Amino acid sequence: MTDAAVTTVAVSHEQQEREAEITRQVLHAFGDCADPRLRQVLQCLVRHLHAFIREVRLTEREWSKGIEFLTRTGHITDDRRQEFILLSDVLGASMQTVAVNNEAYGDATEATVFGPFFVEDSPEIALGGDIAFGAAGQPCWVEGTVTDSAGKPVPGARIEVWEADEDGFYDTQYDDDRTAARAHLFTDSEGRYCFWGLTPTPYPIPHDGPVGRLLAATGRSPMRASHLHFMVSAPALRTLVTHIFVRGDELLESDAVFGVKESLVKDFRIQQPGTPSPDGRDLADQAWSRVRFDIVLAPDGT
Amino acid sequence: MTDAAVTTVAVSHEQQEREAEITRQVLHAFGDCADPRLRQVLQCLVRHLHAFIREVRLTEREWSKGIEFLTRTGHITDDRRQEFILLSDVLGASMQTVAVNNEAYGDATEATVFGPFFVEDSPEIALGGDIAFGAAGQPCWVEGTVTDSAGKPVPGARIEVWEADEDGFYDTQYDDDRTAARAHLFTDSEGRYCFWGLTPTPYPIPHDGPVGRLLAATGRSPMRASHLHFMVSAPALRTLVTHIFVRGDELLESDAVFGVKESLVKDFRIQQPGTPSPDGRDLADQAWSRVRFDIVLAPDGT
Ligand SMILES: [Fe+2]
Ligand SMILES: [Fe+2]
Repeated sequence: MTDAAVTTVAVSHEQQEREAEITRQVLHAFGDCADPRLRQVLQCLVRHLHAFIREVRLTEREWSKGIEFLTRTGHITDDRRQEFILLSDVLGASMQTVAVNNEAYGDATEATVFGPFFVEDSPEIALGGDIAFGAAGQPCWVEGTVTDSAGKPVPGARIEVWEADEDGFYDTQYDDDRTAARAHLFTDSEGRYCFWGLTPTPYPIPHDGPVGRLLAATGRSPMRASHLHFMVSAPALRTLVTHIFVRGDELLESDAVFGVKESLVKDFRIQQPGTPSPDGRDLADQAWSRVRFDIVLAPDGT
Repeated sequence: MTDAAVTTVAVSHEQQEREAEITRQVLHAFGDCADPRLRQVLQCLVRHLHAFIREVRLTEREWSKGIEFLTRTGHITDDRRQEFILLSDVLGASMQTVAVNNEAYGDATEATVFGPFFVEDSPEIALGGDIAFGAAGQPCWVEGTVTDSAGKPVPGARIEVWEADEDGFYDTQYDDDRTAARAHLFTDSEGRYCFWGLTPTPYPIPHDGPVGRLLAATGRSPMRASHLHFMVSAPALRTLVTHIFVRGDELLESDAVFGVKESLVKDFRIQQPGTPSPDGRDLADQAWSRVRFDIVLAPDGT
């Protein structure tokens, strides 16, 4: 048994034939699958999995380490912790899937990863309301419009927003049952929306498990660039799941889950204490920020 | 969001660029990995994983099903049950890894999957001894030689053999602590060996978990072709892990883990009751079988 080197390995013709024959046999075995889509997905998976093994000349020790890694990943996963999603995220597989399912369409706003912190049944707020519900952080005035890709305003679009507090935690990460820093609201008759949120701050993905050790072993950071989550839906339009990011954040280049798109990086303009707020809210001697995010939805089915 | 069809999907240039950019970012993120081999393996994995997602236009629902499948696979795995190895086996990834690590070398005997049923510290038997230790099955006389690839006999080669009983179970699958149908022995001064085993019979891989459901959903059988496991080692020679299979077994074409190689299919010749045995053993009115397996070991490090 040989240890694979990093350099390319010369493989004899007979050896190549033996390796190709194994792949042919597996593809053939899945050839009788009655569900054509399942057959297509599994045969494609087999081709790429085998090509990976051949290309890196995977050693038996490395194969064993892979089995152990998956086993540990399975064992840390429970109802509150999904390490396989984290793994998909840090390998960029989640973002690649998002890209494939949200094809570029005109100037439609780009999508990014959903993440594990969305919760159904968030509280509804009125336009100009506050999503914080006690979450700590600098107030941030968020405003914009929702239009379709022809530029037509979308009244009554449902906007879900959620984010971490200034300590880097979502409400669901606390042991109590708090609901905070999340809400939903609807655009007005001209497709406009506005609300008070928190200026986003960075946080690490859970990194005390196998995925965290993978990041450490490869010199990667578990930090996510600061962001505010949006999910926007309206009849006949493609539901948009995205974030906005903070221009100037030094983590934009190294987001642990590859969620950053240049088009989603926005200017969060810091306002000095005493600056009058857009809706007359009294912010006392607190600094605050404001950001504009105009959202364009693609047609449904694109 | 679109549902992928089985047919090829046309993807715009801009969309292709967006998808390729995600892969570039992930490859870049692993570019700082201090261990060059780990970097090579992970970057290759990322390229093939992303190519798979793009090629099948993986839907978000399919991605979720994949996450759930891996989660269930992790949760059924424990000290006695290794569902990730089963998964690797039925996708042919185990055999592909075996092939890569046991390159074709002259007429060296081909390797096949190790399987989960090998146990260290098997009992030693003398040449001509019996590995059954009470396991049920038809007696089978196994004989052959161990030579190197120049044809030179290998004296003192260690041969480990193990197999299922006629009910399709290995000793380790019973709840008691029995040791049966496994042993080790050594070749004589002329590289010869012989022992009494059991005529191999087919058995299913464990199929009451996610991997079994995958096989059922794709119309595949969980059965392994009948086989007898060998592991043969000697100084300065490449350790051989292999099986021999039974010519005529109808499962040879559909082995669940793709372990069958034509060169490993042997004639197990059934002997009528009363046929004198090679070593004078009294088999009373029992039928028995005999098989010859001449083993050629490649040089170590090949
Ligand atoms: Fe987040
Ligand atoms: Fe076996």
